[in-house]
Order: sequence, then structure tokens, then C-alpha cells
Amino acid sequence: LRMSKGTVILAYSGGLDTSCILVWLKEQGYDVIAFLVRFRVWETDLPLNPVFIEDLRSEFVEDFIWPSVQANAVYEDRYLLGTAIARPCIARSQVEIARREGAQFVSHGATGKGNDQIRFELTCYALYPEVEIIAPWRIPDFYNRFRGRTDLMEYAQKHGIPVPVTPKAPWSMDANLMHISYESGILENPKSHAPADLYLMTKNPEDSPNTPDVLEIEFGNGVPLKVTNVKEGKSKNSPLDIFSYLNEIGGKHGVGRIDIVENRFIGMKSRGIYETPGGTILLQAHLDIETFTMDKEVRRIKQGLGIKFSELVYNGFWYSPECDFVRHCINKSQENVQGKVQLSVFKGQVYILGRESPKSLYNEELVSMDVQGNYDPCDASGFIRINAVRLREHHRLQGVSSIKK
Amino acid sequence: LRMSKGTVILAYSGGLDTSCILVWLKEQGYDVIAFLVRFRVWETDLPLNPVFIEDLRSEFVEDFIWPSVQANAVYEDRYLLGTAIARPCIARSQVEIARREGAQFVSHGATGKGNDQIRFELTCYALYPEVEIIAPWRIPDFYNRFRGRTDLMEYAQKHGIPVPVTPKAPWSMDANLMHISYESGILENPKSHAPADLYLMTKNPEDSPNTPDVLEIEFGNGVPLKVTNVKEGKSKNSPLDIFSYLNEIGGKHGVGRIDIVENRFIGMKSRGIYETPGGTILLQAHLDIETFTMDKEVRRIKQGLGIKFSELVYNGFWYSPECDFVRHCINKSQENVQGKVQLSVFKGQVYILGRESPKSLYNEELVSMDVQGNYDPCDASGFIRINAVRLREHHRLQGVSSIKK
Amino acid sequence: LRMSKGTVILAYSGGLDTSCILVWLKEQGYDVIAFLVRFRVWETDLPLNPVFIEDLRSEFVEDFIWPSVQANAVYEDRYLLGTAIARPCIARSQVEIARREGAQFVSHGATGKGNDQIRFELTCYALYPEVEIIAPWRIPDFYNRFRGRTDLMEYAQKHGIPVPVTPKAPWSMDANLMHISYESGILENPKSHAPADLYLMTKNPEDSPNTPDVLEIEFGNGVPLKVTNVKEGKSKNSPLDIFSYLNEIGGKHGVGRIDIVENRFIGMKSRGIYETPGGTILLQAHLDIETFTMDKEVRRIKQGLGIKFSELVYNGFWYSPECDFVRHCINKSQENVQGKVQLSVFKGQVYILGRESPKSLYNEELVSMDVQGNYDPCDASGFIRINAVRLREHHRLQGVSSIKK
Amino acid sequence: LRMSKGTVILAYSGGLDTSCILVWLKEQGYDVIAFLVRFRVWETDLPLNPVFIEDLRSEFVEDFIWPSVQANAVYEDRYLLGTAIARPCIARSQVEIARREGAQFVSHGATGKGNDQIRFELTCYALYPEVEIIAPWRIPDFYNRFRGRTDLMEYAQKHGIPVPVTPKAPWSMDANLMHISYESGILENPKSHAPADLYLMTKNPEDSPNTPDVLEIEFGNGVPLKVTNVKEGKSKNSPLDIFSYLNEIGGKHGVGRIDIVENRFIGMKSRGIYETPGGTILLQAHLDIETFTMDKEVRRIKQGLGIKFSELVYNGFWYSPECDFVRHCINKSQENVQGKVQLSVFKGQVYILGRESPKSLYNEELVSMDVQGNYDPCDASGFIRINAVRLREHHRLQGVSSIKK
Repeated sequence: LRMSKGTVILAYSGGLDTSCILVWLKEQGYDVIAFLVRFRVWETDLPLNPVFIEDLRSEFVEDFIWPSVQANAVYEDRYLLGTAIARPCIARSQVEIARREGAQFVSHGATGKGNDQIRFELTCYALYPEVEIIAPWRIPDFYNRFRGRTDLMEYAQKHGIPVPVTPKAPWSMDANLMHISYESGILENPKSHAPADLYLMTKNPEDSPNTPDVLEIEFGNGVPLKVTNVKEGKSKNSPLDIFSYLNEIGGKHGVGRIDIVENRFIGMKSRGIYETPGGTILLQAHLDIETFTMDKEVRRIKQGLGIKFSELVYNGFWYSPECDFVRHCINKSQENVQGKVQLSVFKGQVYILGRESPKSLYNEELVSMDVQGNYDPCDASGFIRINAVRLREHHRLQGVSSIKK
Repeated sequence: LRMSKGTVILAYSGGLDTSCILVWLKEQGYDVIAFLVRFRVWETDLPLNPVFIEDLRSEFVEDFIWPSVQANAVYEDRYLLGTAIARPCIARSQVEIARREGAQFVSHGATGKGNDQIRFELTCYALYPEVEIIAPWRIPDFYNRFRGRTDLMEYAQKHGIPVPVTPKAPWSMDANLMHISYESGILENPKSHAPADLYLMTKNPEDSPNTPDVLEIEFGNGVPLKVTNVKEGKSKNSPLDIFSYLNEIGGKHGVGRIDIVENRFIGMKSRGIYETPGGTILLQAHLDIETFTMDKEVRRIKQGLGIKFSELVYNGFWYSPECDFVRHCINKSQENVQGKVQLSVFKGQVYILGRESPKSLYNEELVSMDVQGNYDPCDASGFIRINAVRLREHHRLQGVSSIKK
Repeated sequence: LRMSKGTVILAYSGGLDTSCILVWLKEQGYDVIAFLVRFRVWETDLPLNPVFIEDLRSEFVEDFIWPSVQANAVYEDRYLLGTAIARPCIARSQVEIARREGAQFVSHGATGKGNDQIRFELTCYALYPEVEIIAPWRIPDFYNRFRGRTDLMEYAQKHGIPVPVTPKAPWSMDANLMHISYESGILENPKSHAPADLYLMTKNPEDSPNTPDVLEIEFGNGVPLKVTNVKEGKSKNSPLDIFSYLNEIGGKHGVGRIDIVENRFIGMKSRGIYETPGGTILLQAHLDIETFTMDKEVRRIKQGLGIKFSELVYNGFWYSPECDFVRHCINKSQENVQGKVQLSVFKGQVYILGRESPKSLYNEELVSMDVQGNYDPCDASGFIRINAVRLREHHRLQGVSSIKK
Repeated sequence: LRMSKGTVILAYSGGLDTSCILVWLKEQGYDVIAFLVRFRVWETDLPLNPVFIEDLRSEFVEDFIWPSVQANAVYEDRYLLGTAIARPCIARSQVEIARREGAQFVSHGATGKGNDQIRFELTCYALYPEVEIIAPWRIPDFYNRFRGRTDLMEYAQKHGIPVPVTPKAPWSMDANLMHISYESGILENPKSHAPADLYLMTKNPEDSPNTPDVLEIEFGNGVPLKVTNVKEGKSKNSPLDIFSYLNEIGGKHGVGRIDIVENRFIGMKSRGIYETPGGTILLQAHLDIETFTMDKEVRRIKQGLGIKFSELVYNGFWYSPECDFVRHCINKSQENVQGKVQLSVFKGQVYILGRESPKSLYNEELVSMDVQGNYDPCDASGFIRINAVRLREHHRLQGVSSIKK
């Protein structure tokens, strides 16, 4: 009779890797509690029965997607962070279970070269500093034993783990409510084009409807309160319903596909393909209502904070004092970000059509070409001349040579 | 016999406003030299004969669009600065003429509420510090006399200036090789949708071709060296030809339309609609090749410089010591930004398909899930634990309360 | 009998300029209410009786100096903003009086080349948008009439304004509770040294005491709660008393003198000499307790916000949405900035001696060279190697040439 | 006869630690080449004979201190980076020897909790990516064997390494040409004051001369070209002589002592005491000449780059693509930073007295209170009113509540 080494909470995905890890951890002498998160866009058949199945979809939208919308969170100008914000959501829940169950260990199936291991583990360490983490793909005993998919399949068969019957796609995939990411395998060659049948969440724009859908999204405090399909009159009100509906419409029209090379935290470049239908619509709509209602200079400072936020989240620091600070500041900036944006979704694109807000700083009379408003054009002369003082001095003292190319 | 007050170089657009200004300036006692820039996408009938007609298209592409491509220049996350970069190009040429002709004055038809007056005049002051500027739309004598289009029409008829026969569109427009902007008039209501017949440079995506064009753009030093239509085998090599061809393909597929509210330098919000077909394709392609070839941390610093550059250019500081400095730094960052990007243009969207480069920092073996490369996964454990030192300390000393929402 | 043009609230300093402006405004047909602020370090004889005398010292310390301490506010790495933060304090009060008295006008004696006119007027416009501002030094009628001090003296004598008997110093000066600034006159030559008898608030370090004073400053929420003279046992508790005592000790030991060239908002460089005794002590003490108690990465973001704050305040934007936003964020960052700093003040210098805090993130055991703490040195190997991944790749792919000088 | 495991280049300091490491490495089967750098302020007795002794003082000043002067490099507002810039200088030399001698290994005596291990090793990996690093203080066999100074002493005696006869100071110290740092031991308690006899490079200001030295430092391209003692007429011209002389004068007057808590790269806070006499003088002088000659907005951008530079250098990234990029940009900004600064050094302080430059952007006439220069004060009215447009709008639309505290 062997003593247990302790209890491990395993983030179980239902895939071959974590199924094998589950059995392997038991083999190593741990008590294992498998924990499965439901916030994907579809259900998976599970080879093994997890002990806990948590539906985190609502808290994922409210606690993780909404703050990212407020931040206009985009990593390296293109990636909307769909995987990066899911990791702290899962890990937070896993740590709660670990504390509740008195487990000292947590484990996951993330690889040793990726970002997810970091996002996952930094969350665990931040929320449960005494935790010990078992990352099999970084343990030589494990990764030397399972050198490829065949080894895992054999191990699964030997231990009665049902083996997937469908052949594995020649790439790997991570799916949640916000997006699907595709990488590795045949996608590792950055030059080769992604196959047309890769995408699962969005329709190919070549096959998408020939008429747009027109949506009106209402915002309050920088997050969506309601979405209405203007033609159909249909509307959604709860965070989860709103986001799911935006996914549906975005997916139908092929919105949010990108193919990028990005910089991982650990200093490698990797190629990833992402589809983020609802998130892409929201990014465009939020950018619009935000600029409409937020002071120009606040916007400028907040833009910098949003970029910082995106880097922190990408690198796994959702739960950190600095990310907490930045989130607080961004949230403060959203106080007046309310109003409605109308937009059209069509063939992979989102077109902003118009916007209105009770908190708008847009003053139609002031800006009008036709009426003067409370504005004296002569003031502009002084404004320009004062701005030119420095430029003229520079020219006078150091010569035009330094400013002409 | 009246003495001349001096010589004015007038930036003449061929429109009703600058035609009237031309005559009005003569009436005020100036000798006027009208100067017209050809870098629009089409030719205009000119009611009056300018003295100088300059074709600035090539220098606009090489000296203004290319540095903006290197910078990924985007103002407030959306506007590609098509008008903002045209102003210093025109004013630089105008100032050259003024110096050559010994003229002490320059004049333009920009309004007193906009950005263009600033961009125009700061360039003039920077390059010709002693110049005097006549901005009729800020001179009470002028703007009180010409209170609307009717006054201008009457004045034109009285002075034998041919009056436009086509009715004026209910908005104003500025066109150049890079983009067309639309604003004011019926567009001043930020809620009302833009009419479908507004756009002149891009096709409505609803009517655009049902098959994509696939392009390969080759970059060197961060600027395009060649564009090839992959299916047709056609290619372009000179800056002007490359950019014109990207406009053609982008226009054909309805790429680059945006409807935004933006913050003018003078502190008003205004609504603008823009179409930037070629520029939008280039932005996407450059972002891709840049991330592929540039070190991650250099990219991060350069991203900040690009945002700064965009603000400076938007505000009219193209010719300033700081913009010169930023351009120098950005240009330095582009040394290794070379390679080829393949992309597809379809229904208003640009899809990156793949990329290759002799200077790529992408290491397929290093990043591969299947081979280990020169990488020890155990290192990641240390990396994560050290990154967690601070997070665990924070938790230990100040409690979880401060990091959980 | 002439109708009044309206009521003007004049910021009256008691000097020759504003005394003459007071009379001149009346001459122009205004009713004038002179308003004098007491927050200097000494009392001035007043040639004319102001209607309102306000003691703003406490609110200056609490509402303006304290937020600047939280921000570590320093403009261009050296100037502690003593004048810049006084202007909005005065203007706020002046605007309150204007509203209360139903006055449509405010006036001040600031020159047309300086920063103060901007700081003053932006505050007025922000808090009382309908106000009209009379700035005589920018009105040709006024400045052409009073071309020098002699003109003002003559005018004063003619109108029975008592003329200063002491000869004017060959520079101008602005004094308040926080600092004295000296500029113009013989100081305009940036090469010439300031005379030794210039300084009024601080003793020449060559003549200051030969023994230091040792202070302990206790902070809460990033602002001083108490200062104790460690040797004498004496302590101060209220904001005004604390700041006044720091001025006293700093002044006694010659702390806080600087001679700089700075960049004015309007684009000129000017030479200024400042003495800020108490503020300089507080800056050093606050920097110390802040780094001791604030997370490293929060500090980094906050440092950027502090620089932004300093620029905004220098330029006159204390009352602006962006400065309000930045102040809010900085204040949030100060939640844990509490504890005690011991320092020595001696011969123009402040030496930090030690610090302690219940909220410190300093972990003596963790950092100790002698005990291991909860830290595995092997982790550092992984941390370094992962940080090196990118550097090694860069070397491998692009050669050492690009990283060696 | 045992086969050598290979050749190790050991950075040998002459202290007990690296003496023992030298012998221990041999014991482990390596061929060891000890390498000693001479750039301290004094000579050390060496218990063992190193194979290579390199005098890096000149290249340390020119290649490392000068770029830091250009950058105004200061970490966390206080630390002048004296140790941080020495590490890449040493490691660069060590790597050159390793390559020349065909050695695959390098080793050093830095601890596993500090920054120096990182600075050292990142330089090695960047310049010699294939190198293997032996860091004994992170090898359990080593650190478990040598748990304290006593163990090292015993080992030394056993192996004939001469043991230091002077008792070790109760803190550790790192000295080079730029500074001495003191930490650990009794200094680990952040509250306890540093002993008065700690400092070796600077005189206690209480005992320093009662008359100042006045220096004139001449700059070109942002670095010192010459220093002159104004009273004595003595001057120095070469980089090493200039810097040594500034150390001498700074040390004589007790300049550059700080006591701080700082944030290490690995996320711990540590307490350090530094004395940087020459560097402190240069920082003040460079700040002055830079602001005098550099455009305001260039300065602002460059300030941000300087902060970035400081963080990179502190963290060990001197040899990285981003630090190379930032150095290039900063160097570009220094083109016009030339001229002379006069300053006084006295009792721990540096006082700027005046400055002059052929490239100054300071325009005495323009800024003068007494003459108008080429400046119309009326322009300031327009400048202020346009700056107020946004503030008044904000007030009008969202109420004063949001801008008043």
C-alpha cells in the first residue's frame, strides 16, 4: 500500500494529452482531481470523467472579456488575446478548487515552449503562493517517455483511455467562447497558406451571405449593455447572450480571421491563426463610442495604458499588482463611455455607420463649417504662431538642414 | 497706380473658394501667383489658370507615404493620415516657389476650424520662418463678406470666374493620391449614415468582385520595392507605380473605408469618412513583415515611436525637430524589415496569407512543437518561478484582496 | 455719467504692475475688485487696499502640494513646479469670487511671454467657461503705453499709488509657500552666475549650520502625516505645519536651490533660478517610501504618469480631464505608500538614512545573502536562459555586427 | 590521468569567493584561466595569479559611461547604474578571451539572488551564443558545501589559498571606476543607518572642504571633452583623465552618496548604498547643457528613451537589439549637445552656475521681459483660447463635477 504524494487538481481538456497526464499522475502516486471548464463553443466527448465540470462562460465574459473590451486590448497591433484571457479564468477556478479540496498541487497539459504555461502558472502563484505546480511537458521523465502522438496513443490504449477515432488535424487548436487559435504542425512554415477548411468559428467570406446584418450596440461604462439586430428587431441583454450573439453574427459573415507571426513572452516568434468574430465587432464598436465620448488627452493616456494592459495579459500577468492597477485606471476612464453605435457586418468586415451618446463631447455646432459656434477663427492664428515659435527658432539657430530630409 | 503690397503664392485647388480668394487677394493689392498641385487621383477643370502646376505624386509617395508606412502611422487607432501627410508636401513645394520668386506671402483656402490650416502653416513657418501667411478664412473682412456659398458664387460671376455647373455635394471632400476624405454638411450629424454614393475611390464591397486578388509585396528597409499580382503575374517596381497599383486593387475590392469621429488638434471632435485603399493594404502588409523580422523589444519601442509620429503628423508637425528625430529612429528600426508578404484582397478586407524573409527572426525549429531545437523546457520553470517571486511576495505581504477584483 | 463695462476680479499682488493695472482698469470703465492671496512666506506692504484677502495656504498645501508629492512631480528632471501649482490655486479662488460677485471679467498681471498667463487662464476657462479675461500685458493699448518701469512709476505717482521706495532688484521674483522663483533682468544671460544675495528662502550652504538636522517623516497614502525632528523631539502634524516646518529646516540648511534653463509651453527656453526647501526634502523622502512599499511594475507605470502629470501642470492643465484622470490614477497608486523615512538635512543636501513600513514589500529574508529564504537559486538559471533565447537568436540570425558598437 | 572537461574563463576578482571558485573548478576537472579586470579605484592584493589582467578603464569610460551620460541614465529616479554598466564591460572582455582561447565555458562568482549574474550571463549569451556558463553559487554541490564564509576560509587554507587577514566588513562591496556599491550584511535591515566609515570613495560632507571647487565642463555630442578647474586653471582632456578628475573632485567634496531601496530584476527589493562622485557631477552638467541645446519636444521623447535605456541596462540587456536601438537613437539626439557648463562642487552638492553654447536654442532677445523680440503677445491670447476649447467643452457637456476634486 503506497502513500499518496498528495492531491493534484488537473486542468483537464478532454484531449489525448491531458487524459494521459491524468493517468500518468496517478501512476506517479498522486490523487488526481480532474477539472474541466466549459466555455468553448461546442461540447467535447470526454474519454475520462472529470470530477468537476465548471461552466465559466458568464464569468469569462464579464470578468475577462469586458475589461479587455474597455482596454481595446490588442497585442502587437493585431491579436485580440482570446487565449491569453482564458488562462487566468481557468486557473482562478482551478485554484479555488485546490484551496477548497486542500490540494497542494495543480497540473496542466501546456507545452514547455508556449505562453500558456506562464499564464497558467503565474495566476496560480499569484492567487495561491504556496501551490506546487506539476507541468509534465517540462518534466524529462514525462517528455522523454512521450516523444510523439504515437507514444500517447499506445499509453492510452494500454490504460483503457478511449482513443480519438478521428485523425488529428495537422495543427493544434485552442477554442473558447472568444476565439479559436490554430498553430504548429503544417502551420509552422510561416510562408505556407492556411488551408481553407481550418476555420471552425467563422464562415469563409467567399461563402458568407450577400447581404449585411446591421447591429446597434449600446454601451455603458465602456461595456456592451445590449445588442439589437436593426432589421430583425431581435435583441440581447445579458453579457453572455450579447457576446454569443455577436459571435453568431460575426461567424456568419466571416469576421475576425487573422494570420500572424507574434512574439511569445519567452522570446520566440511563432505563427498563429486566429478567428475572433464577436471580439472583432466589439473592438470596432468600442473604439468608436470611446473616441466619441472621451476627452482627447484622456484617450491618449488611456491608449498607452491599453497597450500596457495587452502586453501584461499576453505575458500572463492578469493577476499582478500592475495589471490590477492598469485595469483600475482603464475602468475609471470608461465612466462616460456610453451610447449607441450602429454598424454593418458583411463579408469579413465591420463598418461603423453612426453613433449617438448622451455623454458625447462632439459639438455639432462648434465643429460646423456653416455656423461659427462659440469660436473665433482669429484665435487659430495665435495658436499656430505660438506653436511655430519653437520651429522658427530651431530653423533660425540650427539651419534648415536639420529638418529637411 | 497702386503699389503692390507684395507677392503671394496661393495654394490653388481649382475650387470655388480658392478661385475667389485668388481674385480677392488681387483686389486687396497683392500680386498673386497661383500654384496648383497635381497629386489627386483625377484631373480637375480649372476655372483660372495657375502659374505653376507641380506634379508632386512621386515625391508624395517617396517622401511622405513611405515614412508613414514604416511607422505604421495610424491616428487614434483608425485614421491613416492621408490628408495630414499631403499638407506638408504641398506647403514644402509652395515655400520653395515663394523663396524662388522672392515672395514674402503665402496663402491658402483652409478653414479656421480645421487641422489643415495648422499643418500648412507650421510647415511654412518651419521651412521659411520669415514668411507671412494670409489665411482669408480667418480674416474678418473676408469671412464676414463671404458668409456662404451663395456669396462666393455671386462674387465669382461678378469677376468672371467660371462657376461650377454641377451642384455641390452636400459635404466637402479632399482628395489626393493616398485617400479621399469626406466631412461637414450632412455628415456633421454623427448619427446619420453616409450615403452609399459618397465614395469615389473604392467600390462598394457589395458590388465588388466575387473572387479575390492575391498580391505579393516585397519590402526592403520597411518600404515596398515591388508588388506582384500572383495570379496575373503582373508586377510594379517604382514607388509611384506600386502605390497606384495598390490603390487600383484596393479600390476594386472596396478596401479602406472608415467612418470615424476624431479629435482635431484644436480640441474639437469632428466626424470624417475616409477611403484609403492602397494605404490600408500596405499597413497590413508592413505590420506583418515588420513583426516577422524585427526583434520583439525593438518592436515595442518602435510601436510607441510610431504612435508619437502619428500624433505629430496629424497635428501638423511633419517639419519639426521632434518629427525629424522620430523619423530617423523609425527608419533605423527598419534596417532588417525586408522580405515578401502574400495577401488576398477581397470584399473590403485584406487577408495576410504568408510571409518569408532572409532576415526573419522566426526560427521554425526553435518554435516547433515536434522537435526540441536548442531549447530546454526545464528553463521555463525557472523563468516562471522567478517571474512569480514578485507576485507571491505581493500576495504574502498585502493580501489577495488587492489583486482579486 | 459713464456706464460700467462690468466687474473685473483682479488678481492683485501688491506690486507696482498690478497696482497700476487696478487703476488702469477703472480708467477703462470697469468696476474692479482686487483680490489678494496670502500664501507667500512673508507679508507685503500693499499700496492699495484689496477687497478680498484670502489665506489659501492650507488649501495650497493639501490640494496642490500634496498631489504633487504623490506624483514626484518634477518638470524636465529638475523643476519642482512651485509656481505652476500656485496658479490654479489662485485662479480657482478668483473664479469663485467672480461667480459669487456676478463678475463677468477676471484680470491678472502676467506677461505675454510666460507660462503663468496660460496656467491662470486655462484654469479660469475650465472652471468658468463663460468668463472673459483681461490680460493687459497682451493689450497693445496697455503695453504700448507702459513700455518700462519708469512709465509705470510715473503713472503710479500721477494716480496716487504709493511707489516702492526700495530699488527694484535687477530680476523678477515670484514667491509662495512652496518656493521662490527668480528670472529675467540680469538673469537673462544664461552664462552669468546668480548673485549670492539673490536667495531669500534658503541660507547659503557656505554659511549654513555645521551640524545636520535629522528628521523622521511619516507618510500615509503617499502624503506626509507627521514630521519629527529626531534630536529635538519636536513634531508637526497638520499639513500646513508640516510643510512650513520642512521649509524652515530646508531653508536653514540651504536645501533646494537650482539654476536651470527650461522650456516654456510657448516654445521658448528661459532661465530660472528656484529655491524649494521643503519641497525638495519631501521629494526625496517620498521617492524613498514609495519605492519601499510599491510594487516594481506599478512603480514603472506610475513613474510615466508622474512625468505626464508634471508636463500637464507645467503647461497649465491642472484643471483638465486628463490631469484629473492622471491624479486619480496616481492617488490610487499611493494606497500602500505609508511608513516612516529618516533623513538628514545638511549643507544643501538631503540624505536618506533609513525607512520602515507596515506595508513594505521588502522581504529581508528573501533578499538575504546569508539565508536562502523561499527561493531556489537554480530558478535563476532558467530565468536567464529564457531571457537569452531572443538574444541568441538575434545573434545567430543577424550576426554580432548589429549588437556590437 | 583525467581528461579535462574543458577550459573555463573565470572572472576573477581577487576575493575569497572567486579564489575558492578557481580551485574548485580545477577540482571539478576543468582547465581554468583566471581573468582579472583592472578598473577599480585602487589595486587589490591577489591571493592567486590570474592569467590575464586587463586594464579596461578607458573602454569602460568611453563605451559604457559616456553613453550613460548621454542618456542621463538613472534607474528608479536615483541609482546611476555604476555596477550595471560594469558587468557587460567585463563580460565582453571575458568572452573575447574565451573565443580567442577556444574556451567553451565561462564562470563568475555572482550570487544567485542578484542582478549581476543576469547582466553577466546575458552579455555572454548575446556575444557568444554557444557558450556554457558555470555559476557556482547556483550549483547545489557548491552552495551546499560552502554555506558561509567559514567554509570558504577552511577550503582556502586547505588548498593553500592565502586567506585575507583583515576581518571582512559586515557588508559586501563592489567597486569600479564609476562607483562603489555596498549591500547585504548589516545593511539588509532597511531601517538601520549606514555606518559613517562605510564610504571609501567620497569624503564625509561634514569633513569636506569649506570652499567649493568650480569646474567648467565642455561637452560635444553629449559627452565631456574637457574639464577645467576654473580657479586652479588645471584641465583634463582624455575621457579617462576627465572622469578620474571628476571622481577626485566629487570625492573630495562628498558628492554622490545615496541610500536606497531598489527593485531587482528578479522581483525582490534590496537595499543598496552607492557613492558615484564623478558620475553625479556629470549627470547634473549633462542635464543642463542638454536642455540648453535640445529642442523641447525632442527632449521629451529622448527622456522616455533614457528611462527605457536605464531599465534595460539595469536588467542586463546592454547587449540586446533594443538597447542597441535605443543607444543609437539617444546618440542621434546628442548631435547638438555641445557647449560649456560651469558648476560648483561643495559639501555633497553640485550647483550649476551658468552655461553657454554655439548650438543653444536659448534666444535671449525672444525671451526677454524688456524687449519684444520677434514675438506678438496677442498671439498668446489665441493660443490660450484654442487650448481652452476642449476644456470649456468638457465643462459644458459633463459638468464641473468631473474636474474639481
